Amino acid sequence: MKQYLKLDEWSIIEEGFNPDNHEISESVFSIGNGHMGQRANFEETYSGPSLQGSYMAGVYYPDKTRVGWWKNGYPEYFAKVLNSTNWIGLKVVIDGEDLDLYKANVEDFKRELNMREGYLKRSFTAELSSGKKVKIEAVRFVSIVDHEVGTIHYSITPINFDGQLTLTSYLDGDIKNTDANYDEKFWDHVTSDANVNQGTVVIKTKKLDFKLASTMRNTFTQNHTFIEPTREVVTNEKYVAHVINVPLKHGEPTVVNKFVANVTNRNHDESDLTTVSQRVSEEASEKGFERLLQEQKEAWADKWEDSDIVIEGDVSAQQGIRFNIFQLNQTYNGEDDRLNIGPKGFTGEKYGGSTYWDTEAYCLPFYLSTSNQEIPRNLLVYRYNHLEKAKENAKKLGFSKGALYPMVTMNGEECHNEWEITFEEIHRNGAIAYAIYNYVNYTGDTDYLGEYGLEVLSEISRFWEERVNYVGKKDVYMMLGVTGPNEYENNVNNNWYTNRIAAWTLDYTLKALAHVNETDPKKYEEIVDKLGLTEEETMKWSDIIEKMYYPVDEEIGIFLQQDGYMDKEQLLVRELDGKHLPLNQNWSWDRILRSCFIKQADVLQGLYFLNDDFDLETKKRNFDFYEPRTVHESSLSPCVHSILACELGYKDKAYEMYLRTARLDLDNYNNDTEDGCHTTSMAGTWMSVVHGFGGLKVKNDRLILNPFIPGQWQAFSFKVVFRHARLNIQVTKDQVVVTNETDQTVDITVGKKDFTIKGNQEVKTVLKEKV
Amino acid sequence: MKQYLKLDEWSIIEEGFNPDNHEISESVFSIGNGHMGQRANFEETYSGPSLQGSYMAGVYYPDKTRVGWWKNGYPEYFAKVLNSTNWIGLKVVIDGEDLDLYKANVEDFKRELNMREGYLKRSFTAELSSGKKVKIEAVRFVSIVDHEVGTIHYSITPINFDGQLTLTSYLDGDIKNTDANYDEKFWDHVTSDANVNQGTVVIKTKKLDFKLASTMRNTFTQNHTFIEPTREVVTNEKYVAHVINVPLKHGEPTVVNKFVANVTNRNHDESDLTTVSQRVSEEASEKGFERLLQEQKEAWADKWEDSDIVIEGDVSAQQGIRFNIFQLNQTYNGEDDRLNIGPKGFTGEKYGGSTYWDTEAYCLPFYLSTSNQEIPRNLLVYRYNHLEKAKENAKKLGFSKGALYPMVTMNGEECHNEWEITFEEIHRNGAIAYAIYNYVNYTGDTDYLGEYGLEVLSEISRFWEERVNYVGKKDVYMMLGVTGPNEYENNVNNNWYTNRIAAWTLDYTLKALAHVNETDPKKYEEIVDKLGLTEEETMKWSDIIEKMYYPVDEEIGIFLQQDGYMDKEQLLVRELDGKHLPLNQNWSWDRILRSCFIKQADVLQGLYFLNDDFDLETKKRNFDFYEPRTVHESSLSPCVHSILACELGYKDKAYEMYLRTARLDLDNYNNDTEDGCHTTSMAGTWMSVVHGFGGLKVKNDRLILNPFIPGQWQAFSFKVVFRHARLNIQVTKDQVVVTNETDQTVDITVGKKDFTIKGNQEVKTVLKEKV
Repeated sequence: MKQYLKLDEWSIIEEGFNPDNHEISESVFSIGNGHMGQRANFEETYSGPSLQGSYMAGVYYPDKTRVGWWKNGYPEYFAKVLNSTNWIGLKVVIDGEDLDLYKANVEDFKRELNMREGYLKRSFTAELSSGKKVKIEAVRFVSIVDHEVGTIHYSITPINFDGQLTLTSYLDGDIKNTDANYDEKFWDHVTSDANVNQGTVVIKTKKLDFKLASTMRNTFTQNHTFIEPTREVVTNEKYVAHVINVPLKHGEPTVVNKFVANVTNRNHDESDLTTVSQRVSEEASEKGFERLLQEQKEAWADKWEDSDIVIEGDVSAQQGIRFNIFQLNQTYNGEDDRLNIGPKGFTGEKYGGSTYWDTEAYCLPFYLSTSNQEIPRNLLVYRYNHLEKAKENAKKLGFSKGALYPMVTMNGEECHNEWEITFEEIHRNGAIAYAIYNYVNYTGDTDYLGEYGLEVLSEISRFWEERVNYVGKKDVYMMLGVTGPNEYENNVNNNWYTNRIAAWTLDYTLKALAHVNETDPKKYEEIVDKLGLTEEETMKWSDIIEKMYYPVDEEIGIFLQQDGYMDKEQLLVRELDGKHLPLNQNWSWDRILRSCFIKQADVLQGLYFLNDDFDLETKKRNFDFYEPRTVHESSLSPCVHSILACELGYKDKAYEMYLRTARLDLDNYNNDTEDGCHTTSMAGTWMSVVHGFGGLKVKNDRLILNPFIPGQWQAFSFKVVFRHARLNIQVTKDQVVVTNETDQTVDITVGKKDFTIKGNQEVKTVLKEKV
Repeated sequence: MKQYLKLDEWSIIEEGFNPDNHEISESVFSIGNGHMGQRANFEETYSGPSLQGSYMAGVYYPDKTRVGWWKNGYPEYFAKVLNSTNWIGLKVVIDGEDLDLYKANVEDFKRELNMREGYLKRSFTAELSSGKKVKIEAVRFVSIVDHEVGTIHYSITPINFDGQLTLTSYLDGDIKNTDANYDEKFWDHVTSDANVNQGTVVIKTKKLDFKLASTMRNTFTQNHTFIEPTREVVTNEKYVAHVINVPLKHGEPTVVNKFVANVTNRNHDESDLTTVSQRVSEEASEKGFERLLQEQKEAWADKWEDSDIVIEGDVSAQQGIRFNIFQLNQTYNGEDDRLNIGPKGFTGEKYGGSTYWDTEAYCLPFYLSTSNQEIPRNLLVYRYNHLEKAKENAKKLGFSKGALYPMVTMNGEECHNEWEITFEEIHRNGAIAYAIYNYVNYTGDTDYLGEYGLEVLSEISRFWEERVNYVGKKDVYMMLGVTGPNEYENNVNNNWYTNRIAAWTLDYTLKALAHVNETDPKKYEEIVDKLGLTEEETMKWSDIIEKMYYPVDEEIGIFLQQDGYMDKEQLLVRELDGKHLPLNQNWSWDRILRSCFIKQADVLQGLYFLNDDFDLETKKRNFDFYEPRTVHESSLSPCVHSILACELGYKDKAYEMYLRTARLDLDNYNNDTEDGCHTTSMAGTWMSVVHGFGGLKVKNDRLILNPFIPGQWQAFSFKVVFRHARLNIQVTKDQVVVTNETDQTVDITVGKKDFTIKGNQEVKTVLKEKV
């Protein structure tokens, strides 16, 4: 835990420069536009500890697996998020001395991430060893309008001297991933091409042939007037630079505007890459910095229009939730169905891969409620496109049919290499099925089932069919050797959640089949034919649904996390001396595994997903049993508990859990923000507010709200898009106001009361005590 | 499986040179003397695939752990067997051409490991590219008399030419382990010092400061007459050489005799190393090759006197068993209680570490029966000396007391880094306790308990006490999250064998305490005091013994391998299509884990160890259930099954299992002999004959024999040392002859008949059908 950032409703602000915080800030102040992004590295030289990071969405590297002990079935490669060309570089040399904040005396340092308008700003005064003082102001952003454009406005003003500036603006493609398994560079040089107008570097990954072309154009002003100084042009392997030498005049700013295009062969013909890159850079340069910035501000205003959450009376909570929403919008915008939401977005390279079950279980609801349905739909289509790879994955593990989606992936292939996770944490398959239900239920887009959903559902069902194990003596189906969402137990038998989500998948698949058969028999025949689906299979699925074994403790009246759970010593987290927490830093893995302590929602994950299948008393008994045994050592844990606590009327617990998720990265709660932000858990924070405090769900094509307001807040409001309408829901201490900001009439339920809200109208209801 | 070696009763013989077999032969033809050893690399240049390997017992390197995913509790280092100075090097250049068997035409190649006399011999004729033919004969050995001496007799005879020989005899300490985690060299240069009389290289490990000094002296003869050619002396970092240039005369042999000393600071003062090394080398040189060889032959004759097994009518079985005995005697001679029996002895570096539970469970019986009791005793003292490290290891995993011996170790610290093994395969602790019982029972040396045994037993008992888990509701103690001997199941609950060996340990500890209390009350008080042992603890142990939970299947009447075993799909190995075998090469780890197939004896390991605790019917039911589910994919599996099959009268099964173990390396059964031999399982082969076919056990201070002879054999005989007597037991088709080869009277039982055999007498009994 580290709190050094200023509270502000719309910005993240760091005042004063402390190198110890720099790598954390590099993560927190990251910028991205869904297509590319980067850590908040300094443009100028910085010789102190720093994690240089610039990432292009969808560009990755299959790094040969390195493990202690090989297990059959491990993937050959781990797909690494690929650190790519450093395009922000500006070397600022004043009278022969390199500007370096690790060496200079720094005054009035301020770093600001303006979330409302979508840019990163930095200003400071540096005193060089010569005593010369120079004031720097730098603004940069990656455009959410022109996705291949990044731009920098960098201003240098001498405070107490006249002198000579040597300024080098460069692109450097000679980049190394810090997590390379074999300590090698992943990029090869292709071409470097520069003249006085532009500089272009093209590099190529050593495997898979990803190509990245980056072009820079630089314009200069002095004292607000364009200048055309002589440029030295430098061209090396993977490197180009423009170098200028200009006099500096005391009090007069010298500014470089750098316009960079980054284009890849993911989106363009390989043969056109250089041309496209140079054209995009030229167009950006022609627009100029001010216009690019203006467009950026307007586009971000639109984003906030759809997705903002306002919290009154709690600036810290307000800043926290906006930071989460901002980072989510920076990471994924749903325009490209080949992309997904990486665990660290564009803020770091740790964990590799781009796609975990986090996407379906935690991120989808945010995009469902804050965007056009095409965007969450693309998240689903992404998995549809990976279906063949998921089938290969199941085959590789020895299954004769069905699909097992990977734990971690970039292109659909499994990347991960821990047997207890890779092979056993198969509940992820259930989350992928559940996401289809969630999407269809929320949007009403039942056509999706016939178009894509049924194939995925059926292949996942086939996997479950083969993965369960019929135990004749007991006439039940069991699921042996799994790891549930609680990764603090591995290789257990009959994890309740996994058994439940498997049976649920089979059931939903049968229902979806019936629905398509009813509404579009021709399509149904087509799919059954394509899948080669037999009656024998669907009958087997029904049998499994009927005879699935669920461990329970009759006495306490709870679902059992797994067969052996009650044989463990039963302790509560509150009985532990605080020095043991977090367990993952203080206990051996052996001790963790043998303890009853739970990393994250497991049985409760099932009660959250399949909420309406259980009565309130059942939810209460299970929550009361499991939450006190849960250490919430996954960033994904508190949100689910917060939401269930809201439903159960546990106000204090709900707020406590909310706090654990909302400022996780801003306050560096887990002491690991320097590696990058916890991007996927940010969607969980959003869910805590909207599904938890807002009590939002969708049932029978109605939007249902059941809000309650934490005592610490004066009011809160959030936006949701539902069936083409956008609603603003404001909750105060005593009422709920729902405003329909569109022309689309919408049916909703608030508490137990039904409303039909016409376009641009609002309804008010008195807020009652929950439950 | 690869069979290219000639059958011979006393030698391993390879005829004809095939580079594809070379690395396998390098393992099989390895030589060692318990203090050092090496693979059967060629002396001269060899540019083909080869694993150069020379090892000094007890010299290792703590290589920083490298795993895919770190788990708390993993050791920092994995201790690697350290490949050290190549001291055999002879570069043979004839008229400018380097002799290299990978390039030359090789005729009449023969490699022989003479096991009776303990040397490696090689002869061949090589035709160089010039058409010149040269005959080479090389004999080398590491002395079991002078433990620091290795020597080579290398003879070069031109067949069809006169010419010029440039011969370089060198020591090369610039050696790299192929399994280095970070691709670095483990040795640093200390000094190289050479003159015309000798050459010495001293190197030092980068960590732990092991120092190795190697000195060579070379003498030369031509046509059987000593010559003193001019020697060029070369001295480089980690390298010294003597180079001579001499004329070669058609038909006349030129011979180099190389006398090498390898001495380490494990056995000598660091400051004396060079002096000692040079002196030892000089003494060897003064003895000369012939005398050294004569002493070697005599010493090996003595070894065979104690440990030979003769099988008549089956040369293949005879060669197999002698190879196993030979390798065991080459690996460990019990003279140094800091040493142990590495998984590959001196035949390779794979798996690192020197000590696994193999030592106690499989190797101890061989040394108990074939040597003076000091030798097995030293194996036990080795663990006593590691007791503090074992206590630290338990602490590291979060236990408040007790000792957990490591899975793999060099100096007592745990090296291994697979959580399901390192943290969970804790039955190894039981084997270490069992070895104490086994030693005391066999030798009658009850003093060992007071001297060393009780401390180890008590600390292991304390570990079990804390590791079990009282389940109040069922009023039983359970053991959750373990891996049994069957490593094809991980993290299971209540592995029967682990529960049983744990309770057995507690029981034996209590008995041992009572015994010492009775026989030496003062000693007892001392130990109780030293350990701080309380009555509360011993009462708890009694309670655990009484209430330990053992999973059983009442219906089938068997002990259950673990709680969930019967929930698995029940299949038999014979029902599997052969293409699936071995499972570890054809199935994913996931599939292996979820299957009922068993890697090696698990419940049956318990029935083997605690044999007398179970009636024959119980053993039969369990064997009949488990053996058909066992794939024997550990080299340690067949021997236990062979022994139990003997007891149960399953003759064919016993012989089948024997065959799977006896020629494992000679026939490269597992296709991995090139990495080194399966040294520890060789002791299992010995057990198959002596405990299995011989039916040997010790009960109430009597040696009991219950032999049966496989139909394929005419006769077999083996030697055992028992209570200072050495017996030769000969089993033919119709009788058993036991000859007492010493003066010591001994009580034995053959079948059901008791005998007292006076010194140098024999008894005969008729062999009846077993069971």
